[in-house]
Amino acid sequence: MKLTNPIQNIRNSYKEVMIKKDHCSCRIPQADKVEEIIELTREIIFPGYFSDSHISEVPCLAHTKRVVRRLHKLLKTQIQYSLLYLADREKSKELKKKSCTLCVDFINKIPEIRKMAYYDAIAHYSGDPAAFNLDQVVISYPGLYAITVYRIAHCLDKIGVQVIPRMMSEYAHRVTGIDINPRAEIGECFFIDHGTGVVIGETAVIGNNVKIYQGVTLGAMSLRKGQQLKGTKRHPTIEDDVTIYANASILGGDTVIGANSVIGSNVFITKSVPKNMVVTTKEAELVLRENKKNGTI
Amino acid sequence: MKLTNPIQNIRNSYKEVMIKKDHCSCRIPQADKVEEIIELTREIIFPGYFSDSHISEVPCLAHTKRVVRRLHKLLKTQIQYSLLYLADREKSKELKKKSCTLCVDFINKIPEIRKMAYYDAIAHYSGDPAAFNLDQVVISYPGLYAITVYRIAHCLDKIGVQVIPRMMSEYAHRVTGIDINPRAEIGECFFIDHGTGVVIGETAVIGNNVKIYQGVTLGAMSLRKGQQLKGTKRHPTIEDDVTIYANASILGGDTVIGANSVIGSNVFITKSVPKNMVVTTKEAELVLRENKKNGTI
Amino acid sequence: MKLTNPIQNIRNSYKEVMIKKDHCSCRIPQADKVEEIIELTREIIFPGYFSDSHISEVPCLAHTKRVVRRLHKLLKTQIQYSLLYLADREKSKELKKKSCTLCVDFINKIPEIRKMAYYDAIAHYSGDPAAFNLDQVVISYPGLYAITVYRIAHCLDKIGVQVIPRMMSEYAHRVTGIDINPRAEIGECFFIDHGTGVVIGETAVIGNNVKIYQGVTLGAMSLRKGQQLKGTKRHPTIEDDVTIYANASILGGDTVIGANSVIGSNVFITKSVPKNMVVTTKEAELVLRENKKNGTI
Repeated sequence: MKLTNPIQNIRNSYKEVMIKKDHCSCRIPQADKVEEIIELTREIIFPGYFSDSHISEVPCLAHTKRVVRRLHKLLKTQIQYSLLYLADREKSKELKKKSCTLCVDFINKIPEIRKMAYYDAIAHYSGDPAAFNLDQVVISYPGLYAITVYRIAHCLDKIGVQVIPRMMSEYAHRVTGIDINPRAEIGECFFIDHGTGVVIGETAVIGNNVKIYQGVTLGAMSLRKGQQLKGTKRHPTIEDDVTIYANASILGGDTVIGANSVIGSNVFITKSVPKNMVVTTKEAELVLRENKKNGTI
Repeated sequence: MKLTNPIQNIRNSYKEVMIKKDHCSCRIPQADKVEEIIELTREIIFPGYFSDSHISEVPCLAHTKRVVRRLHKLLKTQIQYSLLYLADREKSKELKKKSCTLCVDFINKIPEIRKMAYYDAIAHYSGDPAAFNLDQVVISYPGLYAITVYRIAHCLDKIGVQVIPRMMSEYAHRVTGIDINPRAEIGECFFIDHGTGVVIGETAVIGNNVKIYQGVTLGAMSLRKGQQLKGTKRHPTIEDDVTIYANASILGGDTVIGANSVIGSNVFITKSVPKNMVVTTKEAELVLRENKKNGTI
Repeated sequence: MKLTNPIQNIRNSYKEVMIKKDHCSCRIPQADKVEEIIELTREIIFPGYFSDSHISEVPCLAHTKRVVRRLHKLLKTQIQYSLLYLADREKSKELKKKSCTLCVDFINKIPEIRKMAYYDAIAHYSGDPAAFNLDQVVISYPGLYAITVYRIAHCLDKIGVQVIPRMMSEYAHRVTGIDINPRAEIGECFFIDHGTGVVIGETAVIGNNVKIYQGVTLGAMSLRKGQQLKGTKRHPTIEDDVTIYANASILGGDTVIGANSVIGSNVFITKSVPKNMVVTTKEAELVLRENKKNGTI
């Protein structure tokens, strides 16, 4: 009774304010299923680490089969939703077939993703003196989590799956505070320590053996033009063996950090740096005065 | 057996160290229910995006009824807990009635919240060249998530609901890394990109069409006086059409950023800026030297 | 059928790329159980705040017994996994007994952890003018959440439990964006406001009544030597009554911030500061120009 009017008002609001669609009604990929796809793929990559089972170098065949089949079932459906959602309704039969092909394409790429994720894990262990062993890195390091999800999402994006890769990267962003666009290109043995606040933009290019710390932005210079900038290279290029310490910002699509250079904490860079350099900010002059007024700044 | 002593020690500790209450025992609002209230309200705002259903401009009536009724049931109870918790036990009947009224008041405001959230979604799409379409923004952008939860929490705070709004904003903070106090005042078409590390304080005032990026703080100058500062305006005012790039800090209750101004990345501001300005930091002198000692800084 | 080849490829990849173990197969502590251990311990520390029950100064005995027994059951098993995982298989009986002892050791420390967590809660309430009351701090402040988990993980680390403490701290990191290594030493009445992006390294030492804000790093200077730095003091010492405002970085194992000093927002420190000082950066020169080109920087 008392809800009749509020419900009517909400119904009216649907007619006044709406996100217009070219198609009248459709499904979109489901967040919970996309999250399960991430976790199943991680279980294939690092078998036994995330399930109620034993870790082993080579898990039993039945386990692999069970996980791969479950992944196939879920991913096929979600890819189908993403294809149907973006296409004409009439093509639905054709798209069903295509979603099946794309799904198997992805599963065929998992051994390659595994290798990359394994190199990333080693980079995390050898780069962090607080790391106990490789297993600890695999089960609890947010940097490795975010990079593994990036490798999965990037692979799906490459083979032509839409919508789902960005859902994956935003899920990893939520879990870790690390925001890596699936379209960025990142080489082998990538290491992110702590990671909260890291942003790696859509057109960033990163070489091999790169290390970055919390709060690092690989971003764009100015974004006031919004959608007009679509497709342009807006984010920097980081060459092999570069280290970028905490909270440094490197901006602009033409900015290149040369191989084997080191960027200090908090450095703000909008121009290229040659290779083999150490870049710090001229030490900001600190002002010290006695704390007389109980800490008032 | 072996637990008898430990349990006794814990019981003793309850008598020694306690959070004193004026009432002897009570319920407080429940985190899991508050989270479900957020998700139900988001499902009403963007119908079909977060449930196992189809997205459509106007969902079927049965769906709206089901979601609104579930929301009403949950919210009424949680508001009742928040009222009872803060009041005399004798008033319980009166407060039950009041919680019902407050709950319907909130549901009546949803069409207004919807309109604001829809404008926010458009601001996110048009401001970000990496955004694919509006649907993607709705299902996966953390900025829109945090702002939508802020709009819900702010509305509850305005109609007089206590405790629950801050639980909501801390939930969004946990999910997104974006911390917006429900008491801040924020205009239409607000855009937060990436968002991790953003802090918007209790007494901040933000106009229309404002864009902010990751790591931006709209904060207080000095907080050594703690609770004595309660109620004073401690956070800045941002006028219409301002853009604030990543990791900039704007501090102080008297600080006003004038309309249509742009604040560059990493800029640190404690004084007002006139309207129509671009503010950057005088470029910090970078020190480059050859990387001779394998990256030692 | 179509999955036969992909599965075979994944099986082959297990033989080519693997995390080598000295033992052929084992269990590691389980993330979901470790999270439940955290929540049960928090429920003992702040009774009634996180369960579907009433908050009260002294909860009923049955409630305490139920929660402690459940905690004992879970923790004993997870400690056992962590011990077996790191040891010879033959010692399994001995380690089962040891895991039981360690588990009771931890439960015996809970009253001490409670006292510390209670002081932390008071520090959060009195330091934040936006805090409504102590209950709100307990149920929704991420700073208190992260510190409570740190106190639990630090205690487990001290009594000799391995692997699990770091899983706990990374769980809190995920929930709050605050990354406190369980081995850091932190005094009474610690306060973290907002918190996203805070990093407190493994060898940091923090006194009593210290307050820190979002984005503060207590970090290492240079990490290019990775695992070779294991065991050295790499992170700073913060003495009693120090306040460190947002996004300040304090780096290096020899750096000491003297008692009662205040470090301003964004200050970058790599050398010691005497006691009773206020440290700010010489105000960076701001460049203001008219916004002529629609915000291009």
